Amino acid sequence: MNYIHDMRRLMLTLEYDGTDFLGWQVQAEGRTVQGVLEDAVRRTTGEELRVTGASRTDSGVHAEGQVAHFDTESDLGADRFVPALNYWLPADAAVLDSRQAPAGFDARYSASSKLYRYRILRSAARRPLRERFTLREWRDMDVGAMRECAAMLVGEHDFTSFASEHTETESNVRRVTRSELAEAGDELHYLVEANGFLYNMVRIIVGTLLEVGRGKMAAGEFARALEVCRRDAAGPTAPARGLALVNVTYPDDPRRSG
Amino acid sequence: MNYIHDMRRLMLTLEYDGTDFLGWQVQAEGRTVQGVLEDAVRRTTGEELRVTGASRTDSGVHAEGQVAHFDTESDLGADRFVPALNYWLPADAAVLDSRQAPAGFDARYSASSKLYRYRILRSAARRPLRERFTLREWRDMDVGAMRECAAMLVGEHDFTSFASEHTETESNVRRVTRSELAEAGDELHYLVEANGFLYNMVRIIVGTLLEVGRGKMAAGEFARALEVCRRDAAGPTAPARGLALVNVTYPDDPRRSG
Repeated sequence: MNYIHDMRRLMLTLEYDGTDFLGWQVQAEGRTVQGVLEDAVRRTTGEELRVTGASRTDSGVHAEGQVAHFDTESDLGADRFVPALNYWLPADAAVLDSRQAPAGFDARYSASSKLYRYRILRSAARRPLRERFTLREWRDMDVGAMRECAAMLVGEHDFTSFASEHTETESNVRRVTRSELAEAGDELHYLVEANGFLYNMVRIIVGTLLEVGRGKMAAGEFARALEVCRRDAAGPTAPARGLALVNVTYPDDPRRSG
Repeated sequence: MNYIHDMRRLMLTLEYDGTDFLGWQVQAEGRTVQGVLEDAVRRTTGEELRVTGASRTDSGVHAEGQVAHFDTESDLGADRFVPALNYWLPADAAVLDSRQAPAGFDARYSASSKLYRYRILRSAARRPLRERFTLREWRDMDVGAMRECAAMLVGEHDFTSFASEHTETESNVRRVTRSELAEAGDELHYLVEANGFLYNMVRIIVGTLLEVGRGKMAAGEFARALEVCRRDAAGPTAPARGLALVNVTYPDDPRRSG
């Protein structure tokens, strides 16, 4: 059997600096990651097609391991799409890996979990080298209290309190498998892994944990915020620039075997 | 005795992203770190004055710990210059620390050593999040041979082979106290500390170490390049963007006592 020239699905792994993108999803106007990627595919294969991403990251949110798929009739070897697409992509977006997708694969619907990292920089002064990638907090923070609250999110919960009111999903229940704070030099990293995220969920969790760290919210209030399922019980939405999609996990991920 | 309103010297520690600067030193035209800093001082104190930097970093070179001094008649508290100057400085430059300079202090001439780091990113694909801060090398490198050569530079040597022909100094002899390669995840960091550096010295050392890593230059040729004191015996000048001035050391550094 010869699959060349048959329609086939490719799986891409992507990195981008979200600063100058209006997020992942194509908009009526403005520069988006999906937009520049579809443009790069068109220039590479001549096809006008849709590229589907695992996560529709917001404006300013970065990615170290976004995953996307598209269907192509091109006979270009799957791995050759890395240099070909990178040739056309702008400096702030790149394909890290390209391979044949497993049967039935969908970047968005096949994902079993996603891991996000939010970087909080503890510094009194501005730090230009990390301005694009961190939220700076100059006050002392009660990291112990933040850790205690972060741990409360592990498990299956209704995250309505930690979702933008613009969220549109059938259910707001998600299963969080990791929610922890790690010290990394002068930074504090919030790492959260779940089977799915509501709109703005990580940024609202971080905004609320910061309220706890600053002593404006007690651990009991945090627990209650989770319980009451009301957006106004949680804290503000933290800025996008500290957030990065670290990776997306799939069952039988072909990238694991190399 | 009251020193307020007397002329006094301040010592600043600075961080900047060198990408969009034409280096440290004020030029007839173009944006420089010294230029934006002198402008920030003028807006803060009303004084038109010269700020002296420890290192005249090149266009594109970053700094995590550049040191500078200036003499002011302002009665603003030394530590208040951090928020005041940062208010006026652009997003890609910031003052991390400001304090009274010790007697006789000169940011350039009092420096006992400077530490630079050059980041080499080992990746086949472009990596947008680190594009501004690293040189990417997609080929396999013989890190053992690079380490062997880096170690040869420790000690007092005439570094003429590793200096731009535009260098203008009385002597090309410098004392290197540290010259080593450290693995940092998917990066290789070249760390070099010396009592002084010739023009383009770190970038030419890195360009030559890369020739060694790629198998284009043997360790014996590297040793000979150091010996012959001829620029054409060494390798090319590596790009500026991987380089950062990490810190500058002074005898009796007031920053060490907090």
